Amino acid sequence: MAKINPNYQKLRTEYIFPVIEQKLADLKKRLPKASIVNLGIGDIAQPLAPAITTAICSAVQEMGEESSLRGYGPSEGYDFLRLAIAKNEFAHLGISPDEIFISDGANSDTANIQELFGMSNAIGITDPTYPVYLDTSVMAGRGSKILFLPCTEKTGFLPVPPKEHCDLVYLCSPSNPTGVAFTRKELAAWVAYAKKEGAILLYDNAYVAFITSPDVPHSIFEIEGAKAVAIEFRSFSKSAGFTGLRCAYTILPKTVHAHLGRKMISLHTLWKRRQNTKSNGVAYPIQRGAEAVFTKQGQKETKAQVKSYLTQAALLRKGLISLGYKCFGGVDSPYIWWKAPKGLSSWEFFDLLLEKCHLISVPGKGFGPSGEGYVRLSCFTSPAIAKEALKRIGKL
Amino acid sequence: MAKINPNYQKLRTEYIFPVIEQKLADLKKRLPKASIVNLGIGDIAQPLAPAITTAICSAVQEMGEESSLRGYGPSEGYDFLRLAIAKNEFAHLGISPDEIFISDGANSDTANIQELFGMSNAIGITDPTYPVYLDTSVMAGRGSKILFLPCTEKTGFLPVPPKEHCDLVYLCSPSNPTGVAFTRKELAAWVAYAKKEGAILLYDNAYVAFITSPDVPHSIFEIEGAKAVAIEFRSFSKSAGFTGLRCAYTILPKTVHAHLGRKMISLHTLWKRRQNTKSNGVAYPIQRGAEAVFTKQGQKETKAQVKSYLTQAALLRKGLISLGYKCFGGVDSPYIWWKAPKGLSSWEFFDLLLEKCHLISVPGKGFGPSGEGYVRLSCFTSPAIAKEALKRIGKL
Repeated sequence: MAKINPNYQKLRTEYIFPVIEQKLADLKKRLPKASIVNLGIGDIAQPLAPAITTAICSAVQEMGEESSLRGYGPSEGYDFLRLAIAKNEFAHLGISPDEIFISDGANSDTANIQELFGMSNAIGITDPTYPVYLDTSVMAGRGSKILFLPCTEKTGFLPVPPKEHCDLVYLCSPSNPTGVAFTRKELAAWVAYAKKEGAILLYDNAYVAFITSPDVPHSIFEIEGAKAVAIEFRSFSKSAGFTGLRCAYTILPKTVHAHLGRKMISLHTLWKRRQNTKSNGVAYPIQRGAEAVFTKQGQKETKAQVKSYLTQAALLRKGLISLGYKCFGGVDSPYIWWKAPKGLSSWEFFDLLLEKCHLISVPGKGFGPSGEGYVRLSCFTSPAIAKEALKRIGKL
Repeated sequence: MAKINPNYQKLRTEYIFPVIEQKLADLKKRLPKASIVNLGIGDIAQPLAPAITTAICSAVQEMGEESSLRGYGPSEGYDFLRLAIAKNEFAHLGISPDEIFISDGANSDTANIQELFGMSNAIGITDPTYPVYLDTSVMAGRGSKILFLPCTEKTGFLPVPPKEHCDLVYLCSPSNPTGVAFTRKELAAWVAYAKKEGAILLYDNAYVAFITSPDVPHSIFEIEGAKAVAIEFRSFSKSAGFTGLRCAYTILPKTVHAHLGRKMISLHTLWKRRQNTKSNGVAYPIQRGAEAVFTKQGQKETKAQVKSYLTQAALLRKGLISLGYKCFGGVDSPYIWWKAPKGLSSWEFFDLLLEKCHLISVPGKGFGPSGEGYVRLSCFTSPAIAKEALKRIGKL
């Protein structure tokens, strides 16, 4: 008789987003006319840039013509897109196009990368964390091998290399949910840790487009030696409004190896095999849309979107501080990590904001125990909504 | 130090498609002017239907407008598409929209479904087989738990329920690579086997659109009792020319359960959790394109494509038989399973066809040892090419 994977039962049963949905539905029932300000889920608020819609439609038209139809594409992505990324994002870092693998999301990539590794590896995961790293580790039966890396006010809301050994470490910078980013020196400390421990860093850089501070590196490969110990994940989701289009990429240098007994095996070869076997790649028109991000027009349009989100982040950040609140992030990130006043818990503060301001946040505890006492605000919104949020918060 | 997943090293090292590519490249070098007839890879040969391109472009335009932008969609797929599938494909079988999960390919779904099951399950896999079932089982460390189910001339090139116990069985009908399909009676025998053994049938029905025989069921759920023991996989790839667009779906009835000790757990709940955690779904415009397949115009256009491929299959099949060859399939499938004459091996016959006819096939042995002595022909081609192929084969 068929037996299930028992590890799914070890997942935390509390899903935070359905609870938020329920609380919102309850409010709407009580106050049907309430105007809700939603700074909860980190989803884009601006429409696709014209350069992108034009490129996608043109690619779809191509597929509708006998002379230019496209069937299966390469699992690793089309060369035109791998080249455009290598040229525009990594030319100064010596990453070659075939070290870039196109996928349908950094979400799936950061989860699927685990398949390359044996079950005995110890995994470092931050607390609080983007939930995918933790949940997929548990689902894969790695729950007992996790070391939690606290991200608190004391650590600057980013993890610091632990005394304990890890074989794999998930790092997210600019960080979701805490909204802060590694400086060059902080990231170099992680690369040094990885070298010392023989660890691999799984570096989620989905929010790179939001970096504004000069001492924050734009890629882990800016750090000396990282090409032997790191895999970087990026996405078009937040940098170019692709959350509804699904296109991302993983940078896996050929120089990253892991052990099979005494042998060193190239992770690039394994990932290529994994992607070739389990995926048929990303839709051709979507890849053409992603390529268009790197045109002059595409850069102009998408950078304006990011700039606008950062403007809202700055507005909210400064507004909260001037109202006497303590908050972090929002400089190199679209997220603000807001400390609940008067020792309120995450959920208590969430409830207060919902009740008094009709404002949706995300309770920090939903990202891990060390998120208790904070809420996350997403700045993917419009200037008008950001101002309205501040106005309401001011009346608290 | 990081350790790799050792199971990747257990994969067969011979990849058949690179070998074919190399042989083709060699021929082109020797005879640069040779006109090649490619009946190898099973990829579409006709452009996207206008109903589909129109729907995709219109959805992309929507995403470019502030009033109708779309960000993250539901991981399980948009309701509009799940509804369209339930209504058009499963209304008579009582499958509800929320039992249908949209994905980026039957390839990934048939691989990913394994994650729901524990490592102690015995898996039945046909020989020959679509390689994904086997390779992903090996990569996941299930290699020692595989029972091979021979598909030979004696078994009608389809698997018959074995005497041995299996917990999971991969079935593909209409079959890739053998091109034959289960009759109602044959499939009922598998459902009976699953009930007796407490097994789950993983039913890959990607080629359903090609079924022409009245006694071949269009879904496993037409068989009494299947809703307790089967998961069905379908795709828009071959039925609507979506190989370059990536959209498929899995039908997982809520009534399918597997064991956790003495408890019975709903696989529907687990799959929903898996998809929610590891995926952010399929691009919105692609889902609108898939929805358009079910419009009157979409049905007319895509059915004409399938009919054309089947015409080529009938042409090739009858032509080969009239030339005195033995071949199977091609009635309910775009694939023909062609027996090599004079006791030639798969590769010998492949080489002969390449050398003398400049025709690409796929050696049957590439799909498993029982494929030895056969080649697969794909009928995703034009009438002119099918006729040209026969002309050349006639001169062998």
